[in-house]
This record gives sequence, structure tokens and C-alpha cells, in this order.
Amino acid sequence: MSSTEIPKTQKAIVFYTNGGKLEYKDIAVPEPKPNELLVNIKYSGVCHTDLHAWKGDWPLPVKLPLVGGHEGAGVVVGMGSNVKGWKIGDLAGVKWLNGSCMSCESCELGNESNCPEADLSGYTHDGSFQQYCTADAVQAAKIPKGTDLAEVSPILCAGITVYKALKSANLKAGQWVAVSGACGGLGSLAVQFARGMGYRVLGIDGGADKEELFTKLGGEVFVDFRKSKNIVEDVLQATGGGAQGVINVSVSEAAIESSTQYVRANGTVVLVGLPGGAKCKSDVFTQVVKSTKIVGSYVGNRADTREALDFFARGLVKSPIKVAGLSELPEIFEKMEKGEVLGRYVVDTAK
Amino acid sequence: MSSTEIPKTQKAIVFYTNGGKLEYKDIAVPEPKPNELLVNIKYSGVCHTDLHAWKGDWPLPVKLPLVGGHEGAGVVVGMGSNVKGWKIGDLAGVKWLNGSCMSCESCELGNESNCPEADLSGYTHDGSFQQYCTADAVQAAKIPKGTDLAEVSPILCAGITVYKALKSANLKAGQWVAVSGACGGLGSLAVQFARGMGYRVLGIDGGADKEELFTKLGGEVFVDFRKSKNIVEDVLQATGGGAQGVINVSVSEAAIESSTQYVRANGTVVLVGLPGGAKCKSDVFTQVVKSTKIVGSYVGNRADTREALDFFARGLVKSPIKVAGLSELPEIFEKMEKGEVLGRYVVDTAK
Amino acid sequence: MSSTEIPKTQKAIVFYTNGGKLEYKDIAVPEPKPNELLVNIKYSGVCHTDLHAWKGDWPLPVKLPLVGGHEGAGVVVGMGSNVKGWKIGDLAGVKWLNGSCMSCESCELGNESNCPEADLSGYTHDGSFQQYCTADAVQAAKIPKGTDLAEVSPILCAGITVYKALKSANLKAGQWVAVSGACGGLGSLAVQFARGMGYRVLGIDGGADKEELFTKLGGEVFVDFRKSKNIVEDVLQATGGGAQGVINVSVSEAAIESSTQYVRANGTVVLVGLPGGAKCKSDVFTQVVKSTKIVGSYVGNRADTREALDFFARGLVKSPIKVAGLSELPEIFEKMEKGEVLGRYVVDTAK
Amino acid sequence: MSSTEIPKTQKAIVFYTNGGKLEYKDIAVPEPKPNELLVNIKYSGVCHTDLHAWKGDWPLPVKLPLVGGHEGAGVVVGMGSNVKGWKIGDLAGVKWLNGSCMSCESCELGNESNCPEADLSGYTHDGSFQQYCTADAVQAAKIPKGTDLAEVSPILCAGITVYKALKSANLKAGQWVAVSGACGGLGSLAVQFARGMGYRVLGIDGGADKEELFTKLGGEVFVDFRKSKNIVEDVLQATGGGAQGVINVSVSEAAIESSTQYVRANGTVVLVGLPGGAKCKSDVFTQVVKSTKIVGSYVGNRADTREALDFFARGLVKSPIKVAGLSELPEIFEKMEKGEVLGRYVVDTAK
Repeated sequence: MSSTEIPKTQKAIVFYTNGGKLEYKDIAVPEPKPNELLVNIKYSGVCHTDLHAWKGDWPLPVKLPLVGGHEGAGVVVGMGSNVKGWKIGDLAGVKWLNGSCMSCESCELGNESNCPEADLSGYTHDGSFQQYCTADAVQAAKIPKGTDLAEVSPILCAGITVYKALKSANLKAGQWVAVSGACGGLGSLAVQFARGMGYRVLGIDGGADKEELFTKLGGEVFVDFRKSKNIVEDVLQATGGGAQGVINVSVSEAAIESSTQYVRANGTVVLVGLPGGAKCKSDVFTQVVKSTKIVGSYVGNRADTREALDFFARGLVKSPIKVAGLSELPEIFEKMEKGEVLGRYVVDTAK
Repeated sequence: MSSTEIPKTQKAIVFYTNGGKLEYKDIAVPEPKPNELLVNIKYSGVCHTDLHAWKGDWPLPVKLPLVGGHEGAGVVVGMGSNVKGWKIGDLAGVKWLNGSCMSCESCELGNESNCPEADLSGYTHDGSFQQYCTADAVQAAKIPKGTDLAEVSPILCAGITVYKALKSANLKAGQWVAVSGACGGLGSLAVQFARGMGYRVLGIDGGADKEELFTKLGGEVFVDFRKSKNIVEDVLQATGGGAQGVINVSVSEAAIESSTQYVRANGTVVLVGLPGGAKCKSDVFTQVVKSTKIVGSYVGNRADTREALDFFARGLVKSPIKVAGLSELPEIFEKMEKGEVLGRYVVDTAK
Repeated sequence: MSSTEIPKTQKAIVFYTNGGKLEYKDIAVPEPKPNELLVNIKYSGVCHTDLHAWKGDWPLPVKLPLVGGHEGAGVVVGMGSNVKGWKIGDLAGVKWLNGSCMSCESCELGNESNCPEADLSGYTHDGSFQQYCTADAVQAAKIPKGTDLAEVSPILCAGITVYKALKSANLKAGQWVAVSGACGGLGSLAVQFARGMGYRVLGIDGGADKEELFTKLGGEVFVDFRKSKNIVEDVLQATGGGAQGVINVSVSEAAIESSTQYVRANGTVVLVGLPGGAKCKSDVFTQVVKSTKIVGSYVGNRADTREALDFFARGLVKSPIKVAGLSELPEIFEKMEKGEVLGRYVVDTAK
Repeated sequence: MSSTEIPKTQKAIVFYTNGGKLEYKDIAVPEPKPNELLVNIKYSGVCHTDLHAWKGDWPLPVKLPLVGGHEGAGVVVGMGSNVKGWKIGDLAGVKWLNGSCMSCESCELGNESNCPEADLSGYTHDGSFQQYCTADAVQAAKIPKGTDLAEVSPILCAGITVYKALKSANLKAGQWVAVSGACGGLGSLAVQFARGMGYRVLGIDGGADKEELFTKLGGEVFVDFRKSKNIVEDVLQATGGGAQGVINVSVSEAAIESSTQYVRANGTVVLVGLPGGAKCKSDVFTQVVKSTKIVGSYVGNRADTREALDFFARGLVKSPIKVAGLSELPEIFEKMEKGEVLGRYVVDTAK
């Protein structure tokens, strides 16, 4: 541990039982292990997954008590004796995958998020809803100097996730990608990444304001599910035979099933949203004869992280955020539960 | 048309309505178009698809009247003025994809079986249940000199199909492939191809005789669905965490769904059997978190055909057949409907 | 042959011996074979390869007498009995690969330009320096309706070639590609395609006018070989460790060798220019330790052609041309030999 | 550090200057860092690279004084506080890549051997020519229980290297791979791995004893460079148009150049041997027109290591070794310099 001026205590949001009180209080600053960074978190995005972690309604058990948060952007203020490739003052991101074993088959193949021992920020490891957070140095994201730490924070989970999903669609520049749920938090990032990757983007969402946003983000064809009489036909028509790739950020089971119908022959449907208990249903005969693929895509790995951050740093992707204080997190959760949040909240850990 | 000694008429099995009488009768020998071969069919395999074509119970309309059959092996006896790369006396195979437009996007990408204008032997184009059959020279299979024409015939559809399915699983030598339905006509070929490709093979089927056959074909681990208390657990156990690839030749919907559970993280489930009306159901949460793929695989293209025939020619794949006369086809269909056929029937067009 | 109003004779540029007189004269309009289109060529680009065909200085023998040209854009006015997927009035492109056997291993794999029996426009098959040209319907390029036929013509060889080279570099959006010879006919197209594919482009060429052109085309970093003290160092510096891909359109042997040094570890050097007799020399130790690739890229296949034309049709790629009359071809050849041509000449076959 | 009964001193071979005396002496047992294992080396293979490290004739500086060796097989007897995924008593392999930064672009992409900060066993980190060696836990090879530690040791460098080279050739089962230098230490392993991967193997080497060995290892066609009048022609002939892949373990510059000629169109030449100062020369025109690839392949990564060891554990690859005492290393080096070693020496660190 080689650093100075780190306080002994800090502000954090903690809960002790699933669904229990979200307490804004003073807790001890954690000590980094030999392989860990200590990051002074400046801002943290608030993701739907944080809500699931608090409520405990996913089939993965959470650590309790827990400090949530996994889109933390900050500054390295300390590190363990064994850390390589970092120095005090570097900008660092704390992301969903805090660390992994690095020695199982998944880790060896670069699929660290599939590691059976994956340690998850704000889920199995205290996360970014505090001022000082520890993060495995191998997995922590390198944020380029000069980056706006508030704006970059949603890239650390939402951005990486949709970028990885687009890579999983395995498209060539000039091909069509349909984004189902194009104008939400994930979708609006997906549209921008897709443009930067040279794809033609068709968006599916509902409402004229959504269409306007979609066009502003660089989307080419908008299918309004409130107006369309036949979404499958509309997509087939607009893309000359189906989209070569589909990104399902929408968590509607029906929307997912219809994506298996408007994907082009030999194309790829990507599942990325996480609707608890939902099934993806695909007609076997059609899938065989059209030779289509349905692939699950989880969060990105270290290389995906670097690449997604580079798109952001080059200005190809903007993330529209609302900044609030960390102490206001309970109210933000409430709004999210009611579906009242448009865009993404980012909390300032100093407030 | 450059050839001699071709008769004007020939024996064939024809039907005039779906499910109607299968007539063994004399019909005219067809004339090849400029791009076609005339192939003197010696033997033809009998596939379940032939039964579907006759009954007309698939969502694709068939030509009527129709000569079925799409696993025909024979000798080139004539050809159109525009044919390149063939000469009289060459051995040729008539396969499911008789011809395609060669100029649409699917054809350009080598996915000719996905061509919207695909012409199908024994379905939209008179097939191999006759002594003389026409075949697009571009798609006809080149059968190596000296090949046993009876034994090779099932390779022309069943063999190519499972070989292509294995390629679609995108495995590396040394990885595990599970074959669901390992000991039927398609499955027993899949096991042999998989071995020749360097994969470790786990087979799922029912019965001690099946297990014996499986082992003889080179399979490594057999899971008997009649004895297993938990197929998913048994596969996970035997393969150290799941098979990297799964080939579903079984048409059971439940078997397909369970394959989405025993596939390894980042692995691939291949759909290849064609159960009419069935759905492949996959749990979205699990598929995302395990990042698995479900891919449809149809018949192979020209390159797949050459490669599959080469495996056969090198003796890596044997096809256990029963030879009957073409005139006996009605009885064979009857047995197939009753599920009484083990292995594959091949008809001798001279009888 | 189903068409009307095709004249018996036409204007063409013919030569009878290599390096012999280029005669502008009346010759017979050719008759399409069953598999061929008859294309009324409106414009044809003039490529360095045409000069090589005339001089006969390549290791491949040419047909004599010969009508050169392989960047022909025109209208389908006739077709053989066996043609599928085309109709009279369609816009068609005649490209370097006029036709191939479609049944050898290379053709089966979609590598038709590597077919040992490849038929080459303006080389082994009379090409586009005439008003009516025959072209294999399978290989002829489908030009979208409404396309400017003069401007599209260089895309048919130069455009497809650099697009295929970029694909051969196997890059991801956001990675660096260096174009050596960035501002010539091929290079300026490469820069634009690379931008459309989402790559960051570094160009190497000489002179301030070149730098200006490069920047206008969307290039990001320019290395002037007239000013640079160390090109390898400059590229490594600007790209943060080397370009992930390099496109060698320059035919300088020294430039090619230096590209093997500034390519990034695990990156790809693409050879695409055709300097007769030159060797690509790479230091074995360095290539192994950096695990770099050197790949040859020839003209694109049918899918590459469709895709490259789509980039042009969407306005992502412009081709700066000078139009002259077909009868002026001898003077154009003269200028090309002297190196006096900037950009690309296109000849109007009506003049 | 959690272990017992580790002595304070041990036997090792040390040198203090390049080419200086190889001293067999007592040195201190090293202390593992938080991320390191302490491995009680039982056996270590002796590789040509060890000779280069001692002589210092490679363009990479070595640590001095140095304990060489990078094919060490042993038992974990201690570990740092931060190690995951290992326990005392596990079998571990010490390989060329001892450790890397895990946070640079190369490491993130799984190309750890290309990490600029790569730490190399027996080169920049004391290696396996001692009884107790430290190894980064992330990079150390997991050797399956029950493995013969003497026989497995050459797999840890030679085996992984040729396995990775074969993967770099990117072949499909059933394709031809030519191994240039088929019967030396690397070549004979390459032949066996290639067989296990389903490839057809052509070997190039000199002498009847070599041919016999090659055939015994599963090779299919042998070209004897002592007898062949034209190696390129012989390979083209035997493989029906060229090998789809070539593995150059031979370090002859002429052999490498000829491999660029007998590789099939669209095929891949792999450079893996490390001849100091040699160039790979390829004719640009031919490489473009045949669209061939020349790729450098270095040592494998963690996944390659696991896979190569699995081939060995399944009995598909045997490594013929001669066991000597560690104290005899100077004599072994002498023999290697004189080219008197057939097969691979393995030293027993207890003697």
C-alpha cells in the first residue's frame, strides 16, 4: 500500500437485507489486497442491475451487507504490492466484473465474465456507491486522461455491454443491425456504437419523441411498434430481406420472439437484456432452413472495455446523463421502480 | 447434348398427388438444359424428407407430379452445352440442392441452400428415384473414381448435413461434442465425422444395443436416456462442465431444450433435425450469462459436399445400408412411417 | 438470345501483338453464350493492368488479338438461354474476373479469382474497350439502378480490390489501418472505404497536395515520406504501437519491407499492388516474436463486389475521374506510361 | 507463503556471463511473490533457446547471473498470499512465458507472449534448471494429476509451440499440412498434434530413418529432400495442388522460401523456427494472385497450454526423451552445439 492522505472513513450507501433500508452513512475505507487498486470514486452510474441486487430477485445470491454500484469512475489513490501497469493518479473504472480467477478455462479464453468464481462489483464485492472502492487491477478499466468522469460512468457497464453485443452479432460494415428497444439507456448507446462500427441501424421503439432521438443519434430507419401493423414485415421490407444482426435490449418476450423472424438468413439475433424467467422461443424448422443464430452476450472482457472506452474518448458515443448526489440514491431507485427514469442517473459520491 | 446410347424411356417412381399412389412406371428420360448434367442414377438413398415430400406436410409446396429422391449416385451420361468441369463417365451425386440462382446475396456468400430460388431434388425438381436424372452441373457432387455408389448415396444428404452441422458448431480438435440421437441414421454418421475431426464424442440415445453401436463407431461417453436420472447433470459431469458443441439430430422438443442446458459456457447448440412445428426454447437469463449460441444448420454447400465425400473416400466414415429395388419404395415408405427402419435403405434403380 | 436492336458491328480498341498498334476500329458485336450477358458498355475505367495486358509483361499469357478493359459499366441488352437473375435493361458491370469454372475447390470456397480456369476480362476474354461486351452472368456485377455509370466504373476493379484488401486485413472498427501509397488511384479509394468501415486511417505518401487530399478524404494522420526521418518510428508513434493493418498499394519493395516493421504485434500486412518481380522480405525472428501476418489479396469475389458497390451507392466512396473518348485510349496509355496520370481515366465508348 | 519443509538452499546450474562457465552449485531457494507459486521442479526439458540464452546471441538481453530452463515440470510447494486456483501438491509446469503485465492491449487480447513486459523463464526470470523455481500463478501450466513429469516437460515449450503454430495455420480437419523439418524435436511433435487435429500430414526431412520415424508417428506422405529433384513440385503433386498449411520448424532460409511456393492458393505458411537474422522472402505477384498468408507464430497462451497438455494426457502425443542429471547440463549443451542430439534431453534436478 503506497499512498497518502486517504481518510479512514467515507460516505457510502449500504443495505443489510435485500429490500431493506438504503442507509447513507460513514463506513471504513477498504484496504486493497496485493492485487487490488484503491479507487477514489467520483461518479457512479445507476443501473437496473443495482435495483435487482438490492431486491435480491435474481438467481445469484448477493453479499450482505452490501455497497452496490458497478459503474464507478474515479482516481487511483492506492494499490497493493503486486499491481502492475498502474500508477497513483491514473483514472480507473470499476465495472461489473471486479475480478476473476484468471486460471479457469473461461478466463484463459478471455471469457472472464463466465468465470465460475467471478467477483461482481456491487453484488459480491462492495461496489461504487461509496467514495473509496477496491478493484482487481487486472479487471479495472483504464480510463484515458482528460475524460469526463461523470459522462464516462455509464459506459463502464451499459456501454461495454452493448458494444460487446454488437461484436457478438459478428457483422460487417454496411450490414443492417436492428436494435429492439432503440431509445432506452442501453439502446441509445447501441445505436451510436453501431454507427461508429459502420453498420446501418434500424431501431424499434414507440413514440414520435423516440423517433426523433433515434434519428439524432444516427439511426437510419425507425419502426414504431405503436404504429406498425406488422413489425416483422416492416423490418424485412426496410432492410431488403431482414437485418443481418439484431440486438435485443428490450426485455419483452414477444419482441425477442419476433426478432427471430425478421433476422436475415444466416444472420444473428443477440440476447443481451435480462428478463427474469423469460424464454427465447424460435421455430426450429425456420431456424434450420434460414440457418440463423441466436447468441447470448454478457458483459465485455478487458479488451472490449478498452475498445468501448476508446469509442467514447473519440467522441463517437455520448451518454446523456442526469447527475444527483449519492445520498439521493433511495429516491432514484424509487423512480426506476416506477419506470419514471429516462436516460441514466449518475451519482456524485461527494454529495 | 453430347452423348450416345441413352434410352428414350426409363423406370421411375412417380406420384401425382400428395399422399397418392407411388407408381413404378415408364416415363421419358429428361433432357438436360445447357447448364445441366444427365446422370444415370445407379443407387439412391431413402431419406425421411422423401416421406415428407410425398405426404406434402412441410410448409414448402412440392412440384406435382413428382419423382422424389435426393441421394442419388450415378454416372454422367450427357450434359448441356454450357457445362464446365465435367466429362462423360464421371461419377456424380444428385443432392437435395439441385441448383440455385448463383447471383443472389445468399449464393454469393456460398450459402446456396438459403437461396430463395433454390431448386430441390425430389421436391421441386424430379429427383433420384428414376434411372436418369438431370442436375445442375455447378451443384452436382463430384464423387471420386472407384467409390461404391450404393454406400456413398446416404453421404449425399445425411452425411453432408451432419458434417455441415459439425462445422456450424465451430469446435476445435479435442473439444467435446454431444450428439443427441447418436445412433440413428444421421447420428451414427455424426459420431464418425466428429471422430475424424478430432472431437471427443458424447452420445445420447436409448438402449444397450445403441451403446454398443456408439462405442464401435468411436464414441467416448454414452448417456442412456432410458437409464439416466438427469441427462443435463450427466453430460455436465462427463464433459467437465458441458459439451462445447451439441448436434441435435433428435427431433424431440424436450431433448432440444435440455441441450441448451448442458452446453458449456460459450458453447454452441446446433439445430439440424426438422421437427415440424417444434420450438427451441431457451432460458434468456441463462443464455446471456453463459453466453451460449443456438444455431440452425441446413444442408451443406459445394465445399462442404466435397469435404464430406473426402472423409468417406478416406474410409473415416462408413454408412451401414440395406439395398432394395426401386420398385420396392412403397414398402420402404410404409416401414419408415411405422418407425421400423434401422439404418438407411438404398434403392437400386435397375430393380 | 432474347433482345432487339443490337447492331452487327461496333467500335473497339484492338491490338494484334503485345505492344503493337492499338487500333480504333469496327468489329463484330459478340454473341453471348447460354450463360452470358451481352452488355452495352457505356464507360470503362482504364487501369494499369490494361497497360500490362497490352505490353504482355506479366507472367500470364494474354489472348491475341485482344480487346482490353475490365472496368466496364453498361446496360444488359441480351443474354443466353441459361441466364438467371438478370433482365434486359439492368445495369451491369464487367470486371476483371469475367467467369470461372464454378466447380473447382477455389470456386467452391468463394475464391473464384483463384480458379485455375479463371477467364479474365481484357486479358483472356475480350473486355470493355468496346461498345458490346459479353460477360458470364454469374460474375457480372449488379449495379444499382440510377448509378452514374462513368463514376462507378473504377469501383469495378480498383474499388473492389481495395475493399477486399481491407477485408483481408481483418480489422475491427476503431483500429488503425495504414495505407502505403494513400493518394493514388487505389489508395484514395482505400482511405474512403476504410473510413466507411470504421477504421482510423494513417496515410503514407509524398507532398503537401497529397496531404490535403488525404485529409479531405477523411484520413486522420499523414506521414510524408519526403519529410519523415524514420517512417517506421513515425507510424509506431502515431498509432500507439503500430497499425493493426497495412494496405500496400504502393509497389515499392522498400515500402513493403518497412510495412512489416510498423505493423503492430498480431497485426496484418496486406499485399495488393503487383510489382513484377518484387519480393516481400520479412525478418523471421521479428515476425515470429510479434506474431504478425503478411497476406496476399487479389480481386474480390461476387459478395465483395456487391458490398463495394453498396458503399459507392450510399455515397461513402467517391471516385474522382477524367472522362475521355474510347478513341483516345492510345494517348491515355502513353500518359500512364510516363506517370503523368493523377486520378483515373474513364473512356466513353461512344466517342 | 503457506507451506513447510522447503529447504533454504538447493542445487542449480548458474552462469554469470554469456558463454561463461555453467556452474552446478548450491543457491538460495527463491521466495514467491504474492502472485507466485513456488514449484519443486522434478524434471526440465532442454531446448535450443536455453543455448541461445546462455550464449546471449539473440536480440533480447538476458538477466545475469541466470538460471536457465523453461520446460520445468514439478509440484507446487508454496504460494503467495494472492494466488487463486492452485493448492499445495498440484502439478505445475514452468514455461517460457513466466508472467506478463495482464493489462496491456496484447495481454487483454490473450496474446500474453507479445506483452512488452513479458517475463521469460530461464531468460529474464530464473528458470527450471534448479530444484525450486518461482512462477506467476496465472501463467503456470496446470499439469493433470498422474502425468509423467519427465515426459511432459518438452510439451511445456516445444509441444505448446507447435500446437499453437498448427492453430495459426487455421486449417480444417481433412486438409493437408506440410511440416518442414518433420523429424526433429519440434517436427515430430507437430506431426503427432496434426494427426490428432484431423489433418493429413506431409513431412519434409532427409534420410530413410527419418521417413521411418515419420510414418510411425502417423505421417502420410514423406518428401526426402536428399532424394527429391523438386520439392515444390513433389508437394504440389502429393497434395493435389499444395498444402493448405505449412509449419516451418526448419530454420533454413531456402526451405522457408520454398514453402511460400508449395502452399496452396488461400493457404497459410507458418513461421515458427527462429533462425537469427534470416529473412522470409516471398514473391509479391505470386502471393497476391494465390492470396496466400505468411504468419508468425510464437509460443502459445494459457488456453493453448491447457489444450496441448490435454492432447498429451489423452495419449495422442508422445515425446521421446533422454533423461540425464541436471549436473550434466554442460555436456548436453556441448552436444547440442555440435548437432549431436536426436530427440530431446530432459534433466532430473535431483541428480
